[in-house]
Amino acid sequence: MKLTGELLIGQQAIKGSRDPIVAIDPASGERLPTEFQGGSVEDVARACELAGAAFDSYRETASEARAAFLEAIAEEIEAIGEPLIDRAVAESGLPRARIEGERGRTCGQLRLFARVVRDGEWLDVRVDPALPQREPLPRADLRQRHIALGPVAVFGASNFPLAFSVAGGDTASALAAGCPVVVKAHPAHPGTCELVGRAVQAAVARCGLPEGVFSLLHDSGLEVGQALVADPRIKAGGFTGSRKGGLALQQIAQQRPEPIPFYAEMSSTNPVFLLPAALAARGRELGTAFVGSLTLGAGQFCTNPGLVIAVEGPELDAFVEAAATAVEESQPQTMLTPGIHDAYTHGVATLSAHPQVHEVARGVAAEGQPNRCISALFMTRGEALLDDAALQGEIFGAAGLVVACRDAAEVKRVAEALEGQLTATLQMDDADVDAARALLPTLERKAGRIMANGWPTGVEVCDAMVHGGPFPATSDARTTSVGSAAIQRFLRPVCYQNLPDALRPRALEESNPLALSRLVDGQREH
Amino acid sequence: MKLTGELLIGQQAIKGSRDPIVAIDPASGERLPTEFQGGSVEDVARACELAGAAFDSYRETASEARAAFLEAIAEEIEAIGEPLIDRAVAESGLPRARIEGERGRTCGQLRLFARVVRDGEWLDVRVDPALPQREPLPRADLRQRHIALGPVAVFGASNFPLAFSVAGGDTASALAAGCPVVVKAHPAHPGTCELVGRAVQAAVARCGLPEGVFSLLHDSGLEVGQALVADPRIKAGGFTGSRKGGLALQQIAQQRPEPIPFYAEMSSTNPVFLLPAALAARGRELGTAFVGSLTLGAGQFCTNPGLVIAVEGPELDAFVEAAATAVEESQPQTMLTPGIHDAYTHGVATLSAHPQVHEVARGVAAEGQPNRCISALFMTRGEALLDDAALQGEIFGAAGLVVACRDAAEVKRVAEALEGQLTATLQMDDADVDAARALLPTLERKAGRIMANGWPTGVEVCDAMVHGGPFPATSDARTTSVGSAAIQRFLRPVCYQNLPDALRPRALEESNPLALSRLVDGQREH
Repeated sequence: MKLTGELLIGQQAIKGSRDPIVAIDPASGERLPTEFQGGSVEDVARACELAGAAFDSYRETASEARAAFLEAIAEEIEAIGEPLIDRAVAESGLPRARIEGERGRTCGQLRLFARVVRDGEWLDVRVDPALPQREPLPRADLRQRHIALGPVAVFGASNFPLAFSVAGGDTASALAAGCPVVVKAHPAHPGTCELVGRAVQAAVARCGLPEGVFSLLHDSGLEVGQALVADPRIKAGGFTGSRKGGLALQQIAQQRPEPIPFYAEMSSTNPVFLLPAALAARGRELGTAFVGSLTLGAGQFCTNPGLVIAVEGPELDAFVEAAATAVEESQPQTMLTPGIHDAYTHGVATLSAHPQVHEVARGVAAEGQPNRCISALFMTRGEALLDDAALQGEIFGAAGLVVACRDAAEVKRVAEALEGQLTATLQMDDADVDAARALLPTLERKAGRIMANGWPTGVEVCDAMVHGGPFPATSDARTTSVGSAAIQRFLRPVCYQNLPDALRPRALEESNPLALSRLVDGQREH
Repeated sequence: MKLTGELLIGQQAIKGSRDPIVAIDPASGERLPTEFQGGSVEDVARACELAGAAFDSYRETASEARAAFLEAIAEEIEAIGEPLIDRAVAESGLPRARIEGERGRTCGQLRLFARVVRDGEWLDVRVDPALPQREPLPRADLRQRHIALGPVAVFGASNFPLAFSVAGGDTASALAAGCPVVVKAHPAHPGTCELVGRAVQAAVARCGLPEGVFSLLHDSGLEVGQALVADPRIKAGGFTGSRKGGLALQQIAQQRPEPIPFYAEMSSTNPVFLLPAALAARGRELGTAFVGSLTLGAGQFCTNPGLVIAVEGPELDAFVEAAATAVEESQPQTMLTPGIHDAYTHGVATLSAHPQVHEVARGVAAEGQPNRCISALFMTRGEALLDDAALQGEIFGAAGLVVACRDAAEVKRVAEALEGQLTATLQMDDADVDAARALLPTLERKAGRIMANGWPTGVEVCDAMVHGGPFPATSDARTTSVGSAAIQRFLRPVCYQNLPDALRPRALEESNPLALSRLVDGQREH
């Protein structure tokens, strides 16, 4: 499949009229082939018009048809073959095996949502039959199902050019819910976006769906993204990226004449708590393993463990010593974009210059190669973090800060002072259960996922996953952006009262023709 | 129970330090006994501090204990007996039978949520067991449950001094979710608020719960409400009232350093569509029945049918003629407050003066009695409504606007031009099914509840109810404020990864000791 750099608006491919984007191979700093012309606000309006026109039809597709569409997208992505891997590697600087794994995750995610659509639990069917004889007043026949919110604007992330991008979790869950999707392509991987976008476009055609179900727009500035969130036909947004970018778009979403939900996944330092018995038993081992998680993918994960919190003492010293050795041995890794590399370098320099922060170790230097992440490990004291909230700010990349606390009470105070997080991790042994139990209520209030004896990088796509958490980890702690529950972000309930069966949606027909699980008169029926 | 006019902060009753509120009997315009001193921002902070302190303990109460607490509140409210009815009638001007019915609804609502808490479906338990042998990577043990968001600020409505006030739907669903509640008392019925507040306070004590689970604050200005929504310990808000008030509080909720969900139920004109066959067969009957719904409770319902939309012609004329007769015969009714009466009078005068609006009928005049609602019926043309969005603004009270359209296509255009609504109603016969089907997709996008051949007033408290809808009907169309699904507003998911069984919440323990419905490895287990 040859790249053309065009916008994909419904079934059309159109040359944009604004400044072009050119992708950079961050490993070499060189420009990659193909110019991607930016879209205009007219292109946004056209994509939204098509999405709006497709909505009523698409949201009422039968479960089987919608599930088959999601599976067709996965097949079309797989059918691209090596060119997709080549381009995504070139645009992201990520290792080939990682991108191959991410393709598997992306297609697996689409198939998971196909299963979710078929199961039909997302419809949350509730039936309260009429009670004409009830005193003092009869009860009407009342039935509830969930329907799609409307067309959704999706903003992919730089760090997952497949799994959190054009056909990533936001798109898959929105399409599963019955929402048309308009994607704003990420400027760091426009070619990957086009390839995947064309796969989705082909799946739309193959499944005979209205063309407005999917569009993909490039943007060389901010106009397309802003116009997209502001468009009255867009009824929700999904975003993964920086706190600044997420908040700016969320503000547009809130200040529209009709405000809309905007799901922004933004910023998390993913604290790791080293509990005393675990730290005493395997401090060095934990130090080495921590750096493995810290430096994975150049630290460019939303769930990268940027904070380690423990009580000071020789056990923590052993952890830090082992971690320092591992950091010093860590090789430079290509970061996703020059901009991300600059921000990382700046963040590390700022932390290094902080009077209450001590630099423990740096990774191997880059020797002239561009855009390389040099890992970094810092230490501070619990008091310092309690005094200066800036110390808990996210540095996107492989920089970690160890927070040495005077005692368990200070650990708890530091935990209470944390902002909202995607994850919180407990390194614990059996003897730490009481200490863990004391921290747990705080961590539940702070994080969407709490784990024991693992590392937060690696987010399973499954039913029980929560990739979300209190602000600023996300803009809406009531949801997850990974896993089957992500579909719920794009739904709303509608109640039908006394409608004749001929007019009821199939999911609510008296005979339950779709064999859905239903809550009937307060009792669960299957 | 004697009224003291005090603030209820945890288990304390404290005299407020700010300007007093005095309740007015709107039927006579006279002051009712007892002064209710307004609270200060320090009182807000104290209530929120107690709520924050109670949260971790309260949210982990066993289902049975929490359900018993909800039932205890209902019992304590019932135990107040006639003084509650007397005071609510005096403060609201609503008929005694209506207030008695509302007490039944309020207590029934609390008992419904007790059932919901016991059932445990709200926990949405999901278990993905570990797959240690999986290739290329093993899967961790992942379990999800829902937990409470945190302390909730509740702002009751003037028009339901019991069912949407201190122990109304917002409070009942928040308490059911595990959230402590701080209520800002409605200034129109402070005595009713105190009586019910003391009942909740007594139930907290009787059930041995932490005192911060409930507080009640009076406010003679806006400071208490604003400080309450801004308090960092408050994690969500519930509001029923005017669009202006709801939007102002929502803005505070969004602009906090940590934004929070704010559920505001605000404004709806609840369009009624008269379809051709029904209109031809029973236009006069429908006209009379419409006015019955329009004037019920002086039109002071969120679901009052303020708009009627139909194709012009002799059938619609017959409807209007019958409706006009019914309006002309309608007696003046006491409105809830002098302020609501003033706003109604102003709204009716504005509509009456609109060049595209024709006044059809007025109800019987009030003859010197204060705060009486004189029903009013107006007509306009579809084109006029399409030209001037102001014509679809809500007039709170018994004022209706009939919109005569040229044809079915214009009816559809008017439907598309409507703002978000709580309800939409179809008056239809068998021969109208196709016409109804053509409107249905539009109505689904516009409203939370769609009904056939009923009237929107009367909102059943049940599982299938949706009392919600797209903006500006509410600030969040993904939810309902009435019925069992209202609990979902105050929950968020948390995922637990590889936690030892000793540390897991009971709901997630391996042996499923609470016998909860669970989604295990993608399969529903009961």
